[in-house]
Amino acid sequence: MTLPASDALPGDPRFFHREGPFSIGTLAECAEAEIVGQDGAEDVMLRGVAPLQAATAQEISFLDNRRYLPLLAETKAGAVILGPAFRDKLPEGVVGLVSKVPYLAWARIAARFHPVTPARAGVHATAWVDETAQIGEGVEIGAFATIGAHAVIGAHSVIAAHAAIGDGVILGSHNRIGTHVSVSHAILGDRVTLYPGARIGQDGFGFAIGPAGFETVPQLGRVILEHDVEVGANSTIDRGSMRDTVIGAGTRIDNLVQIGHNAQLGRCCIVVSQAGISGSTELGDFVTIAAQAGLIGHIKIGDKARVGAQCGVMSDVDAGADVIGSPAMPFREFFRNVAFLRRMAKKDSKTEG
Amino acid sequence: MTLPASDALPGDPRFFHREGPFSIGTLAECAEAEIVGQDGAEDVMLRGVAPLQAATAQEISFLDNRRYLPLLAETKAGAVILGPAFRDKLPEGVVGLVSKVPYLAWARIAARFHPVTPARAGVHATAWVDETAQIGEGVEIGAFATIGAHAVIGAHSVIAAHAAIGDGVILGSHNRIGTHVSVSHAILGDRVTLYPGARIGQDGFGFAIGPAGFETVPQLGRVILEHDVEVGANSTIDRGSMRDTVIGAGTRIDNLVQIGHNAQLGRCCIVVSQAGISGSTELGDFVTIAAQAGLIGHIKIGDKARVGAQCGVMSDVDAGADVIGSPAMPFREFFRNVAFLRRMAKKDSKTEG
Amino acid sequence: MTLPASDALPGDPRFFHREGPFSIGTLAECAEAEIVGQDGAEDVMLRGVAPLQAATAQEISFLDNRRYLPLLAETKAGAVILGPAFRDKLPEGVVGLVSKVPYLAWARIAARFHPVTPARAGVHATAWVDETAQIGEGVEIGAFATIGAHAVIGAHSVIAAHAAIGDGVILGSHNRIGTHVSVSHAILGDRVTLYPGARIGQDGFGFAIGPAGFETVPQLGRVILEHDVEVGANSTIDRGSMRDTVIGAGTRIDNLVQIGHNAQLGRCCIVVSQAGISGSTELGDFVTIAAQAGLIGHIKIGDKARVGAQCGVMSDVDAGADVIGSPAMPFREFFRNVAFLRRMAKKDSKTEG
Repeated sequence: MTLPASDALPGDPRFFHREGPFSIGTLAECAEAEIVGQDGAEDVMLRGVAPLQAATAQEISFLDNRRYLPLLAETKAGAVILGPAFRDKLPEGVVGLVSKVPYLAWARIAARFHPVTPARAGVHATAWVDETAQIGEGVEIGAFATIGAHAVIGAHSVIAAHAAIGDGVILGSHNRIGTHVSVSHAILGDRVTLYPGARIGQDGFGFAIGPAGFETVPQLGRVILEHDVEVGANSTIDRGSMRDTVIGAGTRIDNLVQIGHNAQLGRCCIVVSQAGISGSTELGDFVTIAAQAGLIGHIKIGDKARVGAQCGVMSDVDAGADVIGSPAMPFREFFRNVAFLRRMAKKDSKTEG
Repeated sequence: MTLPASDALPGDPRFFHREGPFSIGTLAECAEAEIVGQDGAEDVMLRGVAPLQAATAQEISFLDNRRYLPLLAETKAGAVILGPAFRDKLPEGVVGLVSKVPYLAWARIAARFHPVTPARAGVHATAWVDETAQIGEGVEIGAFATIGAHAVIGAHSVIAAHAAIGDGVILGSHNRIGTHVSVSHAILGDRVTLYPGARIGQDGFGFAIGPAGFETVPQLGRVILEHDVEVGANSTIDRGSMRDTVIGAGTRIDNLVQIGHNAQLGRCCIVVSQAGISGSTELGDFVTIAAQAGLIGHIKIGDKARVGAQCGVMSDVDAGADVIGSPAMPFREFFRNVAFLRRMAKKDSKTEG
Repeated sequence: MTLPASDALPGDPRFFHREGPFSIGTLAECAEAEIVGQDGAEDVMLRGVAPLQAATAQEISFLDNRRYLPLLAETKAGAVILGPAFRDKLPEGVVGLVSKVPYLAWARIAARFHPVTPARAGVHATAWVDETAQIGEGVEIGAFATIGAHAVIGAHSVIAAHAAIGDGVILGSHNRIGTHVSVSHAILGDRVTLYPGARIGQDGFGFAIGPAGFETVPQLGRVILEHDVEVGANSTIDRGSMRDTVIGAGTRIDNLVQIGHNAQLGRCCIVVSQAGISGSTELGDFVTIAAQAGLIGHIKIGDKARVGAQCGVMSDVDAGADVIGSPAMPFREFFRNVAFLRRMAKKDSKTEG
């Protein structure tokens, strides 16, 4: 077969539903942005979103980084969302939608053209739903999905093909459970999204040393995913041993992340791909854990702390602190150490030579 | 929906089967513990387990860490399992179950109240079992599970919903295969547990460089999981290329761990979340690999060695050694280096300033 | 049950199809190797492959590493593939197949005995294929597999049990899609192999900060996997946000790897287990990323660059460069720093003592 060019416009109709066209006025309103650069622009109709270099007069584009200013100068886009600092960089004939939060404006306009497909109410002919399960209004259940005994699926949720919702699990409304997800021993709030292959609620890694080998310690807690939580593809969240594992409202977890038993994450945390949070560790609100970072168990990370990529955290981190390195230290100290060591080792090698 | 409080007692009846109540005498016997602190206590009935701060007079709790002594002083638990060192810290009216291995005692008592649900013999109506497969006595096979040609499932094993047991695979008795697990080219002993999404027996990462790109080297070995092995959620164990990949009896592997082709792990090893063991590397018995550690291929790790979190191991490790850092070095050396560098860089920055 | 010995010959007939026997002449021709050591050897028949220490007179074996010369001296193999440098180390009576690319010769001979099983054309009785999907000639679709609306499956592809091919997805010919794989929003070339549990095409990790929490940025690109790409078990490749995520022809990705949205990998790259490539990062051709390495977003890695294990790459890497460490630096500098620090800290501790 012949592969497609990879510079196609976003929103390939094979895969994405499209609405519109919309007037620039409508888009500006939805993004709470100010229209600049051309009289009567609010009535111009646009049909989609596109990057600066690919957009035509019928698309709206986006700029939030100084290094893409050369692309702005040459763009053929009908309109561009941008921050106030760049408003006088707009080329002639390009309409500006000026927003103090241009990325948020972009998110909303893109979602206006390509809204999330609502649940298509109904249970696929091949799905297996236990007769004691409670299925809410407007729920969509895909092929070969399984819903266990006494499970509760809140209204307008989507359970994708091959997903497994275990006995007793409770899901709030408007959940989106991806393909091949498994959920057991868990209670989920509203608008929770689980991406394909996420594993929620299995046994934590708990055992005692007995005379003939390891003996499993029963894992008797649950997983609570509060409202608006998202969990990435193939990530794993173990249920608690004696208390619950809790992920706070609005927290977003990327792919291949591990969350150990009894961990407690606050609200609106960000946990990036391949990071790991060990058992019983607690995060405050608005904490960021960058990719491949690891936190040992039984520590506390304060509100708004930021843990850098590949960081190894072995003790508590203060609220608002920025740490990196393994073991973790303040950002400034880490880079000072790196620079010092480089300089000294180089000097030494010259002396030796 | 309203989310539940996350400080509920462990053992939520939505998710956990409960037995009992049991007398303190029965529990002490099952844990081989000594009853102290109150005459006639052996006849008092208890109905479950709970943490110190949540337990009522009808629950038994647990202490093994000095820092929770303040919780012991205020606990309302009917009984507390604890080590000999803490026996005189018991508050008035609280029965003690004293054990030299309190965590093991706890594991056994918790398992007495919440035993593992035995296999519910039978094949789900929707499962697909090849007619040439041999299914042992008392086996439970869940919805949409698939059992391949000539596969053998040992007695009293549980194959959860959506699991895929490939052609020719042999499972011993009392296995627990989780949802969405795939097993191929593998032979498993008795009492093996695989958590959801574990991948056992796929091709290793082997290829040669040919004139037109990479060419696959056939992976002709198997995976052998010996008795009592556990493999965590979404972990991956590749089959051998020319010999078998072997995980020794009693070894426990956490979530998101990678085991490369031909690796050989000894008995009762512990491999914590997100660690990776490259191809043809060999571990002795009782080796611990902490979270996010990585071992290159073709090396040997001696019995009882301990590899720290995020450690990068590039050469053999002696039996009993403790290593950490990337590249790996003895614990003591690693922390000496860290402290030295911090001190020198700080001093240097002051001189500069 | 009794577990098998783990030193069995490769190619256990429970799991592997076997062809042959083949004459040494046939094997030498298939490997483009020269026969040495014995007259008339080309007519000797062999029945399989085996390691040096296990092979009998009916098997062919392989040597490419000096440290296994002692095994060569004692091998009972009927023939051994080896490089020109070792040809005079052949023991009496052992036929040599001399090749300048012995590992490639080995790959081809092993594949001659154990060729990949071709697709067994047909759709399993339990599979769910949307009526609008196009299924090519000779395609095999396994139990409980799902093929979405308007999906296209190229000729002679194998879709294993439990795989989920989403709406609109296009697969070229001779694809091999493993058990429990999910693919959405993606176009795959010919001869693409996805191992069990791989996740292709889900939403990238993209969101803006709104007044009430994070707001999802629609992910409107696709995933393009070019010809001959392989993706390991439980690896995750997110679709692009505004452009496509592209994996170049012949690139091989190991298990548990994360590829972020908009990433672009060139041809014949190697990405080893548990590595992570963040969003919008670009790799040239023939780049190697070793295990557990992490690359931040929006950087470029030049052709043939090599990134070491656990390396943390925060900026562009030149073509042909070798980097390691976190943050990344040239190999030589990294090891110089390590040695210098070790020496200085040791000296300091002696002075202190």
